[in-house]
Amino acid sequence: MAAAASRGLSAAAGEAAQLRDVVAPKLSVATIKPRVVAAEYAVRGEIVRRAQLLEDELQAGKRKFPFEKVVWCNIGNPQILGQKPITYFRQVLCLCEYPQLLDHPQIGALFPADVIERARVFLSDIPGGVGAYSDSAGALVLRKQIAAAIERRDGYPASPDEIYLTDGASPAVHYMMEMLMRSGQDAFLVPIPQYPLYSATLTLYGGRLVPYELDEAAGWGLNVDNLQAQLAAAQQQGLCVRGLVVINPGNPTGQCLGADNQAEIVRFCEQHGLVLIADEVYQANIYAADRTFTSFKQMVRQLESSAMLVSLHSTSKGFVGECGRRGGYMEVVNFPPDVHEQILKLASINLCPNVSGQICCTLMMTPPEEGEPSYDLYVQERDAVLGSLARRAATLVEGLNQLEGVSCNAAEGALYAFPRITLPAKAVAAAEALGKPGDWLYCSELLEATGIVVVPGSGFGQAAGSLHFRTTFLPPEEDIEGVVRKLGVFHKAFLERYGGL
Amino acid sequence: MAAAASRGLSAAAGEAAQLRDVVAPKLSVATIKPRVVAAEYAVRGEIVRRAQLLEDELQAGKRKFPFEKVVWCNIGNPQILGQKPITYFRQVLCLCEYPQLLDHPQIGALFPADVIERARVFLSDIPGGVGAYSDSAGALVLRKQIAAAIERRDGYPASPDEIYLTDGASPAVHYMMEMLMRSGQDAFLVPIPQYPLYSATLTLYGGRLVPYELDEAAGWGLNVDNLQAQLAAAQQQGLCVRGLVVINPGNPTGQCLGADNQAEIVRFCEQHGLVLIADEVYQANIYAADRTFTSFKQMVRQLESSAMLVSLHSTSKGFVGECGRRGGYMEVVNFPPDVHEQILKLASINLCPNVSGQICCTLMMTPPEEGEPSYDLYVQERDAVLGSLARRAATLVEGLNQLEGVSCNAAEGALYAFPRITLPAKAVAAAEALGKPGDWLYCSELLEATGIVVVPGSGFGQAAGSLHFRTTFLPPEEDIEGVVRKLGVFHKAFLERYGGL
Repeated sequence: MAAAASRGLSAAAGEAAQLRDVVAPKLSVATIKPRVVAAEYAVRGEIVRRAQLLEDELQAGKRKFPFEKVVWCNIGNPQILGQKPITYFRQVLCLCEYPQLLDHPQIGALFPADVIERARVFLSDIPGGVGAYSDSAGALVLRKQIAAAIERRDGYPASPDEIYLTDGASPAVHYMMEMLMRSGQDAFLVPIPQYPLYSATLTLYGGRLVPYELDEAAGWGLNVDNLQAQLAAAQQQGLCVRGLVVINPGNPTGQCLGADNQAEIVRFCEQHGLVLIADEVYQANIYAADRTFTSFKQMVRQLESSAMLVSLHSTSKGFVGECGRRGGYMEVVNFPPDVHEQILKLASINLCPNVSGQICCTLMMTPPEEGEPSYDLYVQERDAVLGSLARRAATLVEGLNQLEGVSCNAAEGALYAFPRITLPAKAVAAAEALGKPGDWLYCSELLEATGIVVVPGSGFGQAAGSLHFRTTFLPPEEDIEGVVRKLGVFHKAFLERYGGL
Repeated sequence: MAAAASRGLSAAAGEAAQLRDVVAPKLSVATIKPRVVAAEYAVRGEIVRRAQLLEDELQAGKRKFPFEKVVWCNIGNPQILGQKPITYFRQVLCLCEYPQLLDHPQIGALFPADVIERARVFLSDIPGGVGAYSDSAGALVLRKQIAAAIERRDGYPASPDEIYLTDGASPAVHYMMEMLMRSGQDAFLVPIPQYPLYSATLTLYGGRLVPYELDEAAGWGLNVDNLQAQLAAAQQQGLCVRGLVVINPGNPTGQCLGADNQAEIVRFCEQHGLVLIADEVYQANIYAADRTFTSFKQMVRQLESSAMLVSLHSTSKGFVGECGRRGGYMEVVNFPPDVHEQILKLASINLCPNVSGQICCTLMMTPPEEGEPSYDLYVQERDAVLGSLARRAATLVEGLNQLEGVSCNAAEGALYAFPRITLPAKAVAAAEALGKPGDWLYCSELLEATGIVVVPGSGFGQAAGSLHFRTTFLPPEEDIEGVVRKLGVFHKAFLERYGGL
């Protein structure tokens, strides 16, 4: 009121303005938090919603389509495309759901002995089993098993007190952005291209995204000089960069970092006091013979570094592909105890992650061991999935590279190819006339013509002037050649339709 | 810089200040978002963490305790206290986990026919089964079944497009507070006492809590004149109240609203354009013979009201008690389509709720029907849990009312008693000397003396000058009298220790 009066408004007008402010506005997209409206999540964005509509119409037989089914290559969701779950995981989970089966006289004929034993131990050690809230960070007994598995993986100790089980890996990113982004001046370094969870959560929690470009010409390499330059530029603009996101193996890019490169990254974070979010959910998905996975946790310990690290893992990827389960964990290293308390409090406000997801995550980290009854089948299933993914990745990338104006780096890891596409000027102009980028038009027409759902590169970010799309190589092996062929036919027609390159 | 210069700082000092702002501050509780630090969640707060420590020490045999075990009465977590899951739910979930069992030649001897059929249909209708991401709002086939169940419950249609499956009920509250609280000027009317999820999410998302007191002397009644007065007072302070939380049956208070009262509440929300969050997770927990549950959805439809409603439900409560499952849904009624789109986007940023929780939630809403093989056992299990809870509630409340200076309203519903306690002046002074409220001291000493974990009323909010605590009545029937007896012995000693009333 005082301010209104000083601007010379009459008291009555001031009162009316005040009343307008305090009466609940009509609910609409214009009257909710602008940050929520601004957040974007391309992996399930406009083209995906359109695809859902087409699939509904297709199944209802409403009209004719130039394709027989919608092929979901927009998202790493293996089991929807027919990938089978790992038998051992599901057998243990099945018994945890219905412990009475353990008392059945023929249980030994129904399940392998190690599965039965594993389920019995979980049921006796997890207070209340899968039906009770666990500790907010996840059941202690499971965190201990995961810590031991990390220790075996890395050769360095891990503490259950630094592990937080989560519903998939996404909540971990929410917690970090929610805590660290105090205001619009706080920022995170994020790769371009990136997985849009990072841009979406930064927008939601009011932080700023400082991009660092991966070098497409160098196989999507990460250059630490570039990190340094982007950090300095952000500081020049008055931004306070508080962390760095690294996705290894890369999403959508598929590159695997070398250990030397990782050491530089850890040193960089240590030097600048940055929280390193290491998105390592694809750690089991490495196809290049000359690449191996080194965790950032191992690197931090090897360097005896004080760098603050949040390492993410998930049951949704790898050869596990248990997306619907929402299992995952984060390991939080070199954080002060008072910040651990705040993470735990945030987790407690959601009570706990789902317990069968916690068990699945533990099983992923502690699979059957050699000599146990389930070991051979486990290895066979694991290797079949990974071998097939490697072949599918090669088929897809090779096919893409044969298309005019398309170039695609090898997918060293993860589940995606991210080809660069050069489009006719007329196509770019036609897209611009719709207020859309050229890659959106390409993906949109691809969907309408073939039923194949991919995501425009603009949803991930891309170097100025370049266009891409992201596609998984998850369609079954017998289908992947068909996908490549349809893509080729569409691509040729698209170029012709818009006057060629 | 300009501002620094105008305040007469030297350029060098200004630059140093700027550098301090842009260099990442040392990570600590002082350098994360203050709203995160300010959020409180008493149900898993300080006393509960202390109890966890005591249990760990007890199990490790580290030292002698005056009790044999920790009794978790702080939280509605039935299965941790021995409540058995509903067999039908678990049988269906077990088969969904491990569909190969369906092919076993003896499957018909292992599971009832309706369970087998139900699992088969879920597995064929949910794309990818429990291992694939579903639609972000939950699998369409499940939302359709839940909508049909709501229609049977209320006698009015429900739409699957207005149902969002969630990991428990909590994410629904997060989505609403995140969307509606644009700034610290936006506010929600919340009951006092309340379930601390509401205060915690309001703090996290930067909104303000406008309290309305339930009338303890009138059995925790909700007076709409009081809502009106609090709304007017908030507007006088320049706050924009955007919604109202009603918990029915009440938590922590246990009261069940009458239909006339609900009609007034709906009209109040309609009149003032408020979003009504109806927390109805205890809808199956009603013990008072003269009370029945009427959903706010039914009331909105019956009144042909345009009031905006978000009705919450969960698998964690009722007689189901599947807390670890993280199953739940919200039905969002009379919202504009553009806001539905934003809810769906928020849900999509987390990909999807866990699918076995989605199935459990659907089973809760569509249990076996009369004539089906599983019906009798289902009814028997349901009635046994509810009957026992009613007896335990009565035993607990009666025992509490026999204590000097304690009065407790009947628990008409839900899972809690919320007794009012009068404490000796010396006890209140001793608590104040520790910087704590009197009820905290009482609950803290109760834990140390008996192992019984309850939550101070200050964690839920209480009328000025009054003190309470919340306790579940979930300990098994054979234990509840022991709990009451120990509480009585402790209470007497506490009063004596602090000089009596």
